[in-house]
Amino acid sequence: MPTPYVRLDTTDAAVLLVDHQAGLLSLVRDIDPDKFKNNVLALGDLAKFFKLPTILTTSFETGPNGPLVPELKELFPDAPYIARPGNINAWDNEDFVNAVKATGKKQLIIAGVVTEVCVAFPALSAIEAGYEVFVITDASGTFNEITRYAAWDRMTQAGVQLMTWFGAACELQRDWRNDMEGLATLLSNHIPDYRNLMTSYNKLTGQ
Amino acid sequence: MPTPYVRLDTTDAAVLLVDHQAGLLSLVRDIDPDKFKNNVLALGDLAKFFKLPTILTTSFETGPNGPLVPELKELFPDAPYIARPGNINAWDNEDFVNAVKATGKKQLIIAGVVTEVCVAFPALSAIEAGYEVFVITDASGTFNEITRYAAWDRMTQAGVQLMTWFGAACELQRDWRNDMEGLATLLSNHIPDYRNLMTSYNKLTGQ
Amino acid sequence: MPTPYVRLDTTDAAVLLVDHQAGLLSLVRDIDPDKFKNNVLALGDLAKFFKLPTILTTSFETGPNGPLVPELKELFPDAPYIARPGNINAWDNEDFVNAVKATGKKQLIIAGVVTEVCVAFPALSAIEAGYEVFVITDASGTFNEITRYAAWDRMTQAGVQLMTWFGAACELQRDWRNDMEGLATLLSNHIPDYRNLMTSYNKLTGQ
Amino acid sequence: MPTPYVRLDTTDAAVLLVDHQAGLLSLVRDIDPDKFKNNVLALGDLAKFFKLPTILTTSFETGPNGPLVPELKELFPDAPYIARPGNINAWDNEDFVNAVKATGKKQLIIAGVVTEVCVAFPALSAIEAGYEVFVITDASGTFNEITRYAAWDRMTQAGVQLMTWFGAACELQRDWRNDMEGLATLLSNHIPDYRNLMTSYNKLTGQ
Amino acid sequence: MPTPYVRLDTTDAAVLLVDHQAGLLSLVRDIDPDKFKNNVLALGDLAKFFKLPTILTTSFETGPNGPLVPELKELFPDAPYIARPGNINAWDNEDFVNAVKATGKKQLIIAGVVTEVCVAFPALSAIEAGYEVFVITDASGTFNEITRYAAWDRMTQAGVQLMTWFGAACELQRDWRNDMEGLATLLSNHIPDYRNLMTSYNKLTGQ
Amino acid sequence: MPTPYVRLDTTDAAVLLVDHQAGLLSLVRDIDPDKFKNNVLALGDLAKFFKLPTILTTSFETGPNGPLVPELKELFPDAPYIARPGNINAWDNEDFVNAVKATGKKQLIIAGVVTEVCVAFPALSAIEAGYEVFVITDASGTFNEITRYAAWDRMTQAGVQLMTWFGAACELQRDWRNDMEGLATLLSNHIPDYRNLMTSYNKLTGQ
Amino acid sequence: MPTPYVRLDTTDAAVLLVDHQAGLLSLVRDIDPDKFKNNVLALGDLAKFFKLPTILTTSFETGPNGPLVPELKELFPDAPYIARPGNINAWDNEDFVNAVKATGKKQLIIAGVVTEVCVAFPALSAIEAGYEVFVITDASGTFNEITRYAAWDRMTQAGVQLMTWFGAACELQRDWRNDMEGLATLLSNHIPDYRNLMTSYNKLTGQ
Amino acid sequence: MPTPYVRLDTTDAAVLLVDHQAGLLSLVRDIDPDKFKNNVLALGDLAKFFKLPTILTTSFETGPNGPLVPELKELFPDAPYIARPGNINAWDNEDFVNAVKATGKKQLIIAGVVTEVCVAFPALSAIEAGYEVFVITDASGTFNEITRYAAWDRMTQAGVQLMTWFGAACELQRDWRNDMEGLATLLSNHIPDYRNLMTSYNKLTGQ
Repeated sequence: MPTPYVRLDTTDAAVLLVDHQAGLLSLVRDIDPDKFKNNVLALGDLAKFFKLPTILTTSFETGPNGPLVPELKELFPDAPYIARPGNINAWDNEDFVNAVKATGKKQLIIAGVVTEVCVAFPALSAIEAGYEVFVITDASGTFNEITRYAAWDRMTQAGVQLMTWFGAACELQRDWRNDMEGLATLLSNHIPDYRNLMTSYNKLTGQ
Repeated sequence: MPTPYVRLDTTDAAVLLVDHQAGLLSLVRDIDPDKFKNNVLALGDLAKFFKLPTILTTSFETGPNGPLVPELKELFPDAPYIARPGNINAWDNEDFVNAVKATGKKQLIIAGVVTEVCVAFPALSAIEAGYEVFVITDASGTFNEITRYAAWDRMTQAGVQLMTWFGAACELQRDWRNDMEGLATLLSNHIPDYRNLMTSYNKLTGQ
Repeated sequence: MPTPYVRLDTTDAAVLLVDHQAGLLSLVRDIDPDKFKNNVLALGDLAKFFKLPTILTTSFETGPNGPLVPELKELFPDAPYIARPGNINAWDNEDFVNAVKATGKKQLIIAGVVTEVCVAFPALSAIEAGYEVFVITDASGTFNEITRYAAWDRMTQAGVQLMTWFGAACELQRDWRNDMEGLATLLSNHIPDYRNLMTSYNKLTGQ
Repeated sequence: MPTPYVRLDTTDAAVLLVDHQAGLLSLVRDIDPDKFKNNVLALGDLAKFFKLPTILTTSFETGPNGPLVPELKELFPDAPYIARPGNINAWDNEDFVNAVKATGKKQLIIAGVVTEVCVAFPALSAIEAGYEVFVITDASGTFNEITRYAAWDRMTQAGVQLMTWFGAACELQRDWRNDMEGLATLLSNHIPDYRNLMTSYNKLTGQ
Repeated sequence: MPTPYVRLDTTDAAVLLVDHQAGLLSLVRDIDPDKFKNNVLALGDLAKFFKLPTILTTSFETGPNGPLVPELKELFPDAPYIARPGNINAWDNEDFVNAVKATGKKQLIIAGVVTEVCVAFPALSAIEAGYEVFVITDASGTFNEITRYAAWDRMTQAGVQLMTWFGAACELQRDWRNDMEGLATLLSNHIPDYRNLMTSYNKLTGQ
Repeated sequence: MPTPYVRLDTTDAAVLLVDHQAGLLSLVRDIDPDKFKNNVLALGDLAKFFKLPTILTTSFETGPNGPLVPELKELFPDAPYIARPGNINAWDNEDFVNAVKATGKKQLIIAGVVTEVCVAFPALSAIEAGYEVFVITDASGTFNEITRYAAWDRMTQAGVQLMTWFGAACELQRDWRNDMEGLATLLSNHIPDYRNLMTSYNKLTGQ
Repeated sequence: MPTPYVRLDTTDAAVLLVDHQAGLLSLVRDIDPDKFKNNVLALGDLAKFFKLPTILTTSFETGPNGPLVPELKELFPDAPYIARPGNINAWDNEDFVNAVKATGKKQLIIAGVVTEVCVAFPALSAIEAGYEVFVITDASGTFNEITRYAAWDRMTQAGVQLMTWFGAACELQRDWRNDMEGLATLLSNHIPDYRNLMTSYNKLTGQ
Repeated sequence: MPTPYVRLDTTDAAVLLVDHQAGLLSLVRDIDPDKFKNNVLALGDLAKFFKLPTILTTSFETGPNGPLVPELKELFPDAPYIARPGNINAWDNEDFVNAVKATGKKQLIIAGVVTEVCVAFPALSAIEAGYEVFVITDASGTFNEITRYAAWDRMTQAGVQLMTWFGAACELQRDWRNDMEGLATLLSNHIPDYRNLMTSYNKLTGQ
């Protein structure tokens, strides 16, 4: 029996950004670095735009894994920030789980580095804990296609929904009329092709 | 328990073409534009050939998304045409759902741009509403392979059947003898390799 | 609940070769033609080696689709050969279904051209009819990767097991000791790398 | 109903290395040989690091398939070593199954060559026998992407969890603090990018 | 010493279309068939638009190579048409060379199937005969990338200039103002992305 | 006889940015749009950083080709800006050539859309006019790899040097000590991997 | 100054097959093994068909490199066979050079394994010795694309002409009428798509 | 006029390893990191094996570029080591040029990171200074294929010979008999496929 349609809802979703650290990012080779950086920041902007509670977490950021990329830190200066001392699965960290619980949300949007570990582990744990889990595939990176698709298979077997930052933005927005300019700005800042459409449109319509 | 074989049936199928708009098409980069244009027009011709009720819909066609590609408009001058004022998921638009209901069909053949949004959202909603949903993968386009396969996974989890325009044409036709020339023309117009076979065949057999 | 392990068994399996026709083969572009030809003939040799009842069928072979490739005809001169007059799904053809029933086998090994039609349609029908279905993915060809993987998804949703000719050969053989030379010959004839291993081995061991 | 999260556990897992033989390795063409060698040895080192009982098995190692690669033999001098006289599915070999049982573990981590046979067959049998099965996709190799993904589909249908050596290492480790230096050494030896991070880090921190 | 810039000139160029035959086209696998068909027809339309003398030639069109694709025949009903009885290199055919000479042009634009034979041979001969040769790479097709690039290397060594139909159209046109609507129509008919730009532009400007 | 090493020199180089227009950019499909946008802006920043005279030019920017992307316009508010009324080859436009001459530079760094036309044409003309020409390959885009490499071959035959924005930046800079922070900022803004190195470095060294 | 057109000529060409040995073939990963085997045998058949003197040579065939593949040995039972005791560049072996001289031919068609060594070295030496050298790119294999194209660049710099077995066959044949059936058989045996054309043609014309 | 065959010669060649630094390596994305690490170490071992004078150089190793990878430092403890304070082109550094001159060699084998800068710049300078330059393409890495092939084109225009570490090893060795075991060890350590051949060979011959 197929699963019912579980839609992302701005009133019930939180964002978990896991281990987007300067060192770990050098391991990501299944997405081009320019594109990946853009996708991660797009997801960050999405969280801000929809005012979703967002939780940042890192693994050993004082070691070779390196610090969280500064752009995310600046984007969420007041977000719960759990620098895990050693737990690989963020869900094994009590502070992290408490921060998730504190949001009071049932839907978790997760992205991170690398996909089969920092994303898949907490995603599987969250499913087990009863959450609805949405993984943002294009803001999550890993070594290569084999590792990516193996992780996807494991997660979908468990009931995770695979999405993209653009899909999540559209599903959360529901209707352009909710904030047309806001959504257009988000898309224009992160989809060059869309920005070009807007540039030409604005020129011709005198905006 | 695997799902039973649900076959497309000309007497019970409708076609939904979602957001094939001149601006949005510039976002499609997982299929070559020559091939994609051909696939979309093939699906249109298929709908005409099998006389399937067809519904056109667009999103913000007065803005940067641009107008529906003229070929589809010309192909279906009398089809219901729902220019959605803001709903991203076409299924959130009452007129659209009413148009679907008005067809009286149970099977929905859906294609559109982009796959993870304009196709996946109404596909998931239609499943939820009790329809049998068939997504035409090669007449639906999106940003890249990650976004395509993430969308496929989400849709198949929900029970959507993934097809192609050629597969749909063959399943609807059932038997060449139902209209041999009609099907041959459809294939010849949209599959260059098949047209070449017919060219050589006709030459040698004096047709 | 995952499906139990259904193993191919020489005493209970039949092979269905669907529409490997000279014209239709020009449509196959998801596998290199040298490799595809080799895979199809390997599957033919496999059927002979394991003495599996084999059924040949074609679609419109007097038209542009062209005749069955001669190698298969020669390999199975006495096999049931159903030249379908118009049914696209071979399972819609009574003679074909009767030929399948006449084998008395429960496991069907299917390959053909193109994957999403000539293979997927009878595979889905056979599942519905209660057979255990194994599709030989690398002896089945189609237009491109999108059409291949869409067909795979639809078939696996229905319970088809996806295999390869090599996997099928090994699962049917069970134990090299059942006929070591026979299996070695089959592999040597169709896997150049394996033939090279045998060439070097035989040289060094004086064979 | 999605499967629950079954986590790898050092106290309950054994490793099965199937047919990584010098001759058979020439058949592996879906992973670059430098990378594949590294992945296999990484899995071996992982087994040592976590002190997981490990079983080696080969198929016809006196014939063209060739001997087990010496590195694995040296890594596990005292491991059960089942040189199968003819069984293709290692699970058909009583000694092998007894060796597995003797470990007393419920979780089996399997890798081998080639994926759709030497890995998939015992994986499916082990599932049937009640084990929890984790296939290390990147330490398993085969002919090409078609054969790889067909094997993956068959295994996931049956409930196998697809993983990678890195994912398995991280899931087994649970917490860096369990043995920080040990894990860092494992990663540094098998992930050049990670080694580079450590090199730069150590330089700057004077280690 | 680099070669000087030799520009295509409408007053001095002829087009040679070599062996675009229904049968031979099934050999072309380095370009997608939809795209290749479009490129060939674009080149044909280009020749018409710039009123360049055009010569058609075929090899054994009564045999398996098949007839010239009908679209080209219809496009150039009055063009010299040399059905070569056996010469593989069209330049070995006296009628063909005479037809070329009769154009009185010094620049030859060549495309055909397959690149390393039907294109490269006459291209090399024409260079030797003192012509300036421009090969339209994307309206010439062959088996795969190895054969394509080997042919390119041989031709560039001899002084052939590699171009594309779009590049040739732009170089011949020189200035949009020479016939703005004509060029726009050519591009719109063969570049879907450009057609989309025009569709959106026309909509917004009320054309 | 190979060409001597002609090095880019800040005192003798000018930058020509040709037709990076919002509409035309939708034609670029040989580079991912995120990466391409980054490369173009990196080239712009490079020109600013080295204070190279820069010339902007567009083709029909009031039509479907669309306006120059705003980022470039903002970056060079005072640069010569030649909106060509119809010349396809910018070098056919007298104002453009005069602007180039007015720079007094001998080395021209060119990038644009699309490579085989807007870049190759003026590059070939400039070579003919006696300039040393350096094409920035990764800030120039076109339809696909065939069109890209055909353009490269034609340009290198004529003596153009193919470079990248990063290569040009490094060759112009000569020595990090000329402005260490300036170069580091340029690289950090346009190479995510390099930014990550700096992030980790700065963290560890307390900067 | 471009090189003149040097055409292969049956009266002046010899074929050198270098190191197609069972062991070395496992190193070839830039061409699929099924395709590569076919190309090598096609080149052998071509040499037989045109009665070109052919020379076989191997490197250390008693060691791990393994024996010459038996098919080539059987195809040329009386050809000079130089089992080089140690020279890596076949041209460094006096017997080999003498065998080449003994053919009295000026044009050398070379193929072998691996491209950048066993092919490139004698090709460069033969150029230096005054021969016209044609390398059959698709019957020569190596580790990957980087090694392939680096070897191509080095060879073309030195004046080697890059060809394919099909191109060589067509250039040697000159005219189908020289032996229509012979050439058709050669093509049919090694180009599945061409064989299919012939199968369909023969069927329709009653042959 | 093609260039004559310039062969690498152990008595006249030196190796320059440029900027293989832990930080810069994270920029290399045109070769898989496992393979690239292997290629670089293979080149190092080659230099040792042939006793070629070797020069190490780095750029800003105290900054984000990071230190030389330790393996190279350990391999050449006594080699000239030029830590350039700022020159990007190593040839602009007097100490480096002096170290090159001090070797007294005329042939320079160069590899480094990244190809279009750290390799191409000194390669072009060395050509200008009268050296024969051989670039080891597979031990040189950069951002992507565009940057790789642009760099190759620029270097071959200037007369650089593109090679691979394996090609260089074979050209330097000339004859297996010069040191059969030494070369076999080098190949076995860096080519897994070759090691497998030796493993099987040794087993069968009792070594």
